Amino acid sequence: MSNLVLEKVNQALGLLQEKEIDLWITFVRETSAGGDPVLPLIFGDGDLTWQSALILSRSGERSALVGRFDAPAVEAAGVYPTVVGYDESLRPELLRVLERLAPESIALNYSPDDVLADGLSHGLYQVLMGYLAGTPFAERVISAAGVIGALRCRKTSGEVARIRAAIQTTLDIYARTFDQVQPGMSEAEIAAFMHGQIDERGLGPAWHLDHCPTVNAGPDSPVGHVGAGAYRIERGQLLHFDFGVQQDGFCADLQRMVYFLASGESAPPEPVQRGFDAALHALQAAVAAMKPGVRGVDVDAAGRAAVVEAGYPEYKHATGHHLGRLAHDGGGVLGPAWERYGDTPFRPLEVGHVYAVELGLAVPGYGYIGLEEDVVVTDSGAEYVGEPQVELVLR
Amino acid sequence: MSNLVLEKVNQALGLLQEKEIDLWITFVRETSAGGDPVLPLIFGDGDLTWQSALILSRSGERSALVGRFDAPAVEAAGVYPTVVGYDESLRPELLRVLERLAPESIALNYSPDDVLADGLSHGLYQVLMGYLAGTPFAERVISAAGVIGALRCRKTSGEVARIRAAIQTTLDIYARTFDQVQPGMSEAEIAAFMHGQIDERGLGPAWHLDHCPTVNAGPDSPVGHVGAGAYRIERGQLLHFDFGVQQDGFCADLQRMVYFLASGESAPPEPVQRGFDAALHALQAAVAAMKPGVRGVDVDAAGRAAVVEAGYPEYKHATGHHLGRLAHDGGGVLGPAWERYGDTPFRPLEVGHVYAVELGLAVPGYGYIGLEEDVVVTDSGAEYVGEPQVELVLR
Repeated sequence: MSNLVLEKVNQALGLLQEKEIDLWITFVRETSAGGDPVLPLIFGDGDLTWQSALILSRSGERSALVGRFDAPAVEAAGVYPTVVGYDESLRPELLRVLERLAPESIALNYSPDDVLADGLSHGLYQVLMGYLAGTPFAERVISAAGVIGALRCRKTSGEVARIRAAIQTTLDIYARTFDQVQPGMSEAEIAAFMHGQIDERGLGPAWHLDHCPTVNAGPDSPVGHVGAGAYRIERGQLLHFDFGVQQDGFCADLQRMVYFLASGESAPPEPVQRGFDAALHALQAAVAAMKPGVRGVDVDAAGRAAVVEAGYPEYKHATGHHLGRLAHDGGGVLGPAWERYGDTPFRPLEVGHVYAVELGLAVPGYGYIGLEEDVVVTDSGAEYVGEPQVELVLR
Repeated sequence: MSNLVLEKVNQALGLLQEKEIDLWITFVRETSAGGDPVLPLIFGDGDLTWQSALILSRSGERSALVGRFDAPAVEAAGVYPTVVGYDESLRPELLRVLERLAPESIALNYSPDDVLADGLSHGLYQVLMGYLAGTPFAERVISAAGVIGALRCRKTSGEVARIRAAIQTTLDIYARTFDQVQPGMSEAEIAAFMHGQIDERGLGPAWHLDHCPTVNAGPDSPVGHVGAGAYRIERGQLLHFDFGVQQDGFCADLQRMVYFLASGESAPPEPVQRGFDAALHALQAAVAAMKPGVRGVDVDAAGRAAVVEAGYPEYKHATGHHLGRLAHDGGGVLGPAWERYGDTPFRPLEVGHVYAVELGLAVPGYGYIGLEEDVVVTDSGAEYVGEPQVELVLR
């Protein structure tokens, strides 16, 4: 773990230079109660109890100001060469560092748009601004969202390798599940089989177990962030999955489609095949639009337009999101210019970004078709990580 | 789970009346990435993905404004009778509720002092203030820390019962560990035995597994939030533990002391016995000072003075903290008036509060003596939850 953390901390020092930010302070306390989502990247999985400041500077400084009881563990981890343990108040230690480094810009972890760059709580922000009150530093505070977004989203090769492994495991569990599903099984029974597959491997789900997997059997099952329920899959219906494992700290996120042939059918009926082809074509159009420098909103438009042009209603969600330590790994989205997405659809794609690309449409009378593939952005475009679904699985 | 959540939501409605606050908004998004620590109390363990507002009012309103894909699960949970699912922006739905209820005070989840009442991130605070800009409501925002602190810290009988069960399990694991420890065992070996006991019962640690338990063998082992390490317990030394399990969503937090009799000893040497007696007397003095209305700082002073009067150095931490869903369960502390504790030592004890009371001192040449007991505040004082340690365990 510590090597990956050191790799990311060094990446962060480079990002401060690239973005011309003098100082980045991650200010936290009692992290066992939640903590800043950037901590797994730049600190690892230990706890910080009293008010603590992890300080990285454009000049290459790596300092941790922490409560005295936390200091030995932070020193032992070896990521921060300078560890200062304090007894009564963080303020004097913090001001000492600021006076020594005299930063013109001080980045803090807040962002209206990116939950993973927004780890500074409002009360703790007030505390910090109280410490800086009356100093010139109070006026030099900026958002660290640019640094954090780039740090989280530009995956190192080690990170991509871990995501790839999580995807392979997810595809393996899908394959075993497709062998197992039978007409008459309930969504809950199918989900239980997949949970057993996760447990057997000693892994976790990529998101909350209650709806990982989401399983939708037939046309009446409600689609969305809802658990697998009581509907039973029958012949002549579509079975939809949204699922991924978390493995070695990293996630997969893939949707898959199965059609249960009705009695006498040797192929899916026309509306089902047409729906699948439309979804597949739209997803491929979105992936084809992906390359460094393109904005998420343009990738979204490619997928969205293809669905609408094929005669289906516009889907009510973004076409994609970053994937990494979390299934929704922050940063920009491949999404439309809707208010709730803020500025996130306007961020350009970069080499090393890993996205889950997803879209869907309903086929009345048969069920929901949702497809989702994971891709990594390279110099020349986007490459699928793991084999994409290009045909309906038939049962 | 849902019954306990409904119990706490109803308690919250009563607290809004008691504290004369018109409206309380818990504003969150992408809670799978962390989320507000109040969510387990008033929402349960599901996720909210898009910007979401859980609204409780002094007039008894319980409304959830959530993204459309989250709405079915929130409806199914049954805690919020009014669930509004939105597509593009939360703002119009939120303003509609505010205009209808016309609150004079709107409490939000921020607090400089209480990490568990500080779940609103600074960026999300900026988003919300943007929504309220140009309305009279922007001026009516206050901290919800009083409501959240009382809600979390006044344990219902159902909550106390769960804490009691976690303590019983912790004492049982301690008893088995005391049977198991032998001179020559390393701190890490002892911790591994206790981890095995947690695993066998299908439970979790009350805080990070790396230092739950903390085990200190002899005089050279570093004390603090550091893992069990390489020191081996030898005859003529003190063995110190800090440990608790998390069971059914609630925690225990207890310190225990063992002395390994040296060859020829039938009782601990005078400095060891005197140190234990001083620590025990100080802890009992702190517990004796506890009753409703007393401030944490006064409880702290009772324990702290007893240690100093017995001739030992003043310990560098607070004498106690709330215990509940978390080992450090927010709210006030039984602590000194040090800057890093903010206003938390000045909060009065209330009936239903559950605290871990802890203090310690070093006995040079023998080791560290730390004691910690869990107590519940009643009308007449404080009662131990679980049997306290009143004698050194001898091995």
